This record gives sequence, structure tokens and C-alpha cells, in this order.
Amino acid sequence: MSLIDLSKQIAIGIDIGGTNTKFGLVNHRGEILAKGSIKTEEYKEVEDFIDALYTNIKPLIDEASHNTTLDGIGVGAPNANYFKGTIELAPNLPWKGVVPFAELMKEKFGVPCKMTNDANAAALGEMMFGAARGMKDFIMITLGTGVGSGIISGGNLIYGHDGFAGELGHTIVKPGGRKHWSTGSEGSLEAYASATGIAITAKKFRAEFPDSMLNQYPEESINSKTVFECAEKGDPTAIEVFRYTGQKLGEALANFVMFSSPEAILLFGGVIKAGDFLLKPAKLHMERNLLPIFRSKVKLVFSELDEADAAILGASALVWENK
Amino acid sequence: MSLIDLSKQIAIGIDIGGTNTKFGLVNHRGEILAKGSIKTEEYKEVEDFIDALYTNIKPLIDEASHNTTLDGIGVGAPNANYFKGTIELAPNLPWKGVVPFAELMKEKFGVPCKMTNDANAAALGEMMFGAARGMKDFIMITLGTGVGSGIISGGNLIYGHDGFAGELGHTIVKPGGRKHWSTGSEGSLEAYASATGIAITAKKFRAEFPDSMLNQYPEESINSKTVFECAEKGDPTAIEVFRYTGQKLGEALANFVMFSSPEAILLFGGVIKAGDFLLKPAKLHMERNLLPIFRSKVKLVFSELDEADAAILGASALVWENK
Repeated sequence: MSLIDLSKQIAIGIDIGGTNTKFGLVNHRGEILAKGSIKTEEYKEVEDFIDALYTNIKPLIDEASHNTTLDGIGVGAPNANYFKGTIELAPNLPWKGVVPFAELMKEKFGVPCKMTNDANAAALGEMMFGAARGMKDFIMITLGTGVGSGIISGGNLIYGHDGFAGELGHTIVKPGGRKHWSTGSEGSLEAYASATGIAITAKKFRAEFPDSMLNQYPEESINSKTVFECAEKGDPTAIEVFRYTGQKLGEALANFVMFSSPEAILLFGGVIKAGDFLLKPAKLHMERNLLPIFRSKVKLVFSELDEADAAILGASALVWENK
Repeated sequence: MSLIDLSKQIAIGIDIGGTNTKFGLVNHRGEILAKGSIKTEEYKEVEDFIDALYTNIKPLIDEASHNTTLDGIGVGAPNANYFKGTIELAPNLPWKGVVPFAELMKEKFGVPCKMTNDANAAALGEMMFGAARGMKDFIMITLGTGVGSGIISGGNLIYGHDGFAGELGHTIVKPGGRKHWSTGSEGSLEAYASATGIAITAKKFRAEFPDSMLNQYPEESINSKTVFECAEKGDPTAIEVFRYTGQKLGEALANFVMFSSPEAILLFGGVIKAGDFLLKPAKLHMERNLLPIFRSKVKLVFSELDEADAAILGASALVWENK
């Protein structure tokens, strides 16, 4: 018979990070059938890296293949270009220049390979398997070491003319504001709302308030986790760190809403562990800066995907995008 | 024979403004075959307004109809909802509440009617007939009494989940900045880069610089046109008005680029008569605030459409969108 049994189709999802690369076999229901990881930084040549991926993934495919079809490979990676299938000038990866990654993968594995940046992949994952199921217009914001984003409009990712759209972490929320440690821009969202930005804010605020619990930690322990611990114990300075961060985030979100009028904004990443300390001021300042026509309409929600699996699921969703 | 002769297909484009409503018969090449206008504000009931449109447009259709086919009607109007075909709570139009405008038009004219806001229509017009022919990713910014926008991504307008996407004039460029005379928001792009905003800036700056030529005009004559006259004569204060405006515009454009990574940004409307006085600082501050990956890639250009016809062309383009 010619009907395709969707439940038998699988994809490989690969999430390339500066330190680790995670991969998994995913089915159409978003179940990870098998997974593993290798150390990205151990492979100075991209060919060796791909050989190592093959050596690790092939046995998983073979094990699953007696009753499944491999549709393709999806890859989420920093500075990945969707249109060209390349990784371009990624500062945190060992391979320099423009790497034709998708082509090399296709040659090795014999199936199509699609790629995009990690936040775009996460947005696809949310749409296919997570909190954004059934939504056609939403924005995904990842709040981790940096701030990433993926924008879905009319059911499709916004790639832009060159494949690099959706760098919302680098939009300016405070002109002339805090200088970004890496890009040098002044007042970007990432400079405030990333884990790195929160640590900077916390160090600044604790110096101004000698009574703050934050002063009981050594300098190198100040991060969004320790700020959260102090906030939970009621430390006003720690609470103010998240309120300040939430205000900057909310102001940025208002601008994003007036751009693409999404049904929801999904927040994802380590920083969201701050919960309502961050979410409440973010929502307040988002609403406050919106035109009346947009107010009380946009859901601001946390991701439903397990953080450890989300990147793999998101990358695998790339295989089934627009199918 | 069954081939369709595109050159024989026509659409009606209607641009509804607070004072005047302009309409025209447009062919596939973007030629306006006939046009006219009525006074919007004379019709307190929307039914009377539509009757007047019919009375004025029907003879034009009849005259053209011996060798053409009318494909439909496209309408650009403030607060028009693309998905519902309604005009909703438009403060500058005589009809209150939610008006099912497209439905009423279809009943009267017997052809399909599509509508969207005026800036979105202008963007479609640029893509079909103007400077954006062949582009799939660009942003149209209209700088007039207010600041409007239409965003094209992957060849389609971004409508958002509710049809109201693309209100870039209301994004905040300076948190806590100039209070908007109508929305009450603080520091929006429109508060600085609209003709209204430029007049406010000019009045403020001329008070600070008693030597400025701008002080030779009575208060009510200060507008972007008189500021341009003074700038052309070399008045440093007038030049600074546009430089300041251009900086705010450029900072906003940088954020828009990092959202949808367009191939070009098209500027349109009365304010662009300021030419390089505005364009040069806008480009400088856009580039300055962009991530390196986006720099020197985005064209910043003025619209090629005749301003008097652009709104009609844009509205008519709605009929052929996605065809």
C-alpha cells in the first residue's frame, strides 16, 4: 500500500554548541528514540567532527531502521545559514571561515540536511512539539548566556533575505546604554537580559547596597542562580535585579509585538528559572509600552519543552518544516 | 481560447483617508486608467459613503469594461483588518465601532474586496509596481503626519495573528522620551520622525538658538517644509533638526533590520523631501547600531512611486497579492 505511516518516519536532530554537540533520533510525535553527545571542541577539522557524528549516530539509525524511514537531518548551530546550509564565521566553534556543513553531512549520511541557528530551531520545536502547537504567529526568546530569538509569522520562520533574521538579542533597548562585552554595541537587550547581563547588574547593585545578601557571595559566584536564591529569601536588592532586567525585557518585547503582532511570546532558557521575579515586571512593562490595540492580547509564557531535549527536538523539526 | 490575457485584467484601488478618499482603475502594469476622489468626511453613514463610491466608480468601470475584466477591489484604510475585512475603531474616520467594510463593498460592487491598512497597501504597491519589484524581504516606512509601516517577509506581508502587525511608528526608540500627543506613549519613533515630531523638535531647537533662521517664521509655519528651506540655506539649527531626527530613525531602523533582515528599507511620504539632510544621519546611525553580520547590506532608498498615485496602486495590489 502507498499510504505513508507517519509514526514510522524519523529525523536526526543535532544541536551544535561551542562545548558539546547533542544529537537524537526523533519521531513525528516528538519522542526522542535514542540520543547521545560528543565534544565539539575536540575536533579541529570539520571533516573529523562529521566522521565522529557518523560513527556515533549510525548505530542508532541501524537499530531503529528495521521499521522506520530516516527523512533527513536537522541541525541547529550558531551562525548557521538556512539558505546556504553553511556555518559562517562562528566565533565559538573550532572551524573557521564559511563551512559548507549541510553539504558535507549529506555526503556522509546520504540524506538531506537542513540547518538554522539554535534559537530558530527552538522556535520550530515549540511549534511542532511544545507550547506553541497550533500557533502560526509567535516569538521565541531564549534567555541563556546570550539572548537568542526565533520568529514565526504565518506559520513560517522569518529568515530574512540572507537567512540571518531574528537577532532580537542585539536590538537596542537603551540607546547609549551598557556596552556589550563582545559586540561593542551600546544598550542591547542581551547586555541586560542574558545571564551574563544579569550578573553585571547584580554586581553593580550589590555594590550600591552594602546590606544586600548578594554581598555574602564571592565575586565569581554572582550569577542568575545566586541572585534567584537571594530573591527567594526576600533580599530587596536581588528582587530589584530581576525587576530591572524584567523592565528592559518587557520594553523590548513591546517593540517586538508591534512588529509582528504575535499570539504569544515564549521564553526559554536558564534565566527563566527566576520565574515571577522576572515575568511580572516583564509583562507590566510590555503592556505599558504597547499601543492599546495590542494590549492584553499577547500571551507571555514559558517553554514547555525539557531544556535538555529542546535543542534536539527543535533541530529535528527543521526536517519536517513546511511538510 | 482559455488563456487569460493579464493586460485585460483590472482592479479598483481605494485609499481612504480622514479627509479625502481616492480611487482608481489599475491594470496589471500599474497604470492608472482612470481615477477620482470623494470627501470622506461628508458621509456620516458608511452606507452613504459606499453608495457615493459606487456612483463615482461605476461609470469608470463601464467605460473600461468593453475589453477588460474587473478582478476585485483593494482598499487601504486606517485601522483596517486584513483578516476580517473590517475597519475597527478608526479615530480619524466618521464611522464608529467595527465596520464590516469589505462585506458591504462586495454586496454593492459584486466583486471580492480585500483591505489592509494604508502602509501595508503601500508596501504591496512598491513590491508590485515600485522600487521593490523583485524583492521578497523589505520594510516600507511611511514618514508623513504619522509614521506607518508595512513589512514584507518571504514575499508576503506580515499580518500577525490578528491582522494588526507592522506598527513600527509606535515602537519605542527612547524609553521615557517624548510623550506622544495621541497615544501617550513615551519615546516612540512617530514622536520624533513624523512631520508632527519634526515640527516639535524644530520649535524646541529654535528656542535654544535665537540666531536660527527658524525664528523668522511664525509658530504655525514651523513644519518639515520650512525646516527644509532653512536647512537648504545652510541654517545649522535646521540641519541639526534633521540630523537629530535621522539619528532616531536610524536607531529604529537598526532594530527593524535585526528583526526581519530585509534586503532594503524603503522610505516614503512628505518627510523624505528632506533628502540627504535626513537620509545620511539615518544611514549612519542604522549602520552603527547593527551587528556586523548585517552591516553594509541593507539598501536605504526612497520610494519610486508618485506620491499622489501610490496609495491607489498599493490598494489595487492587494487584489493580486499571492496570485
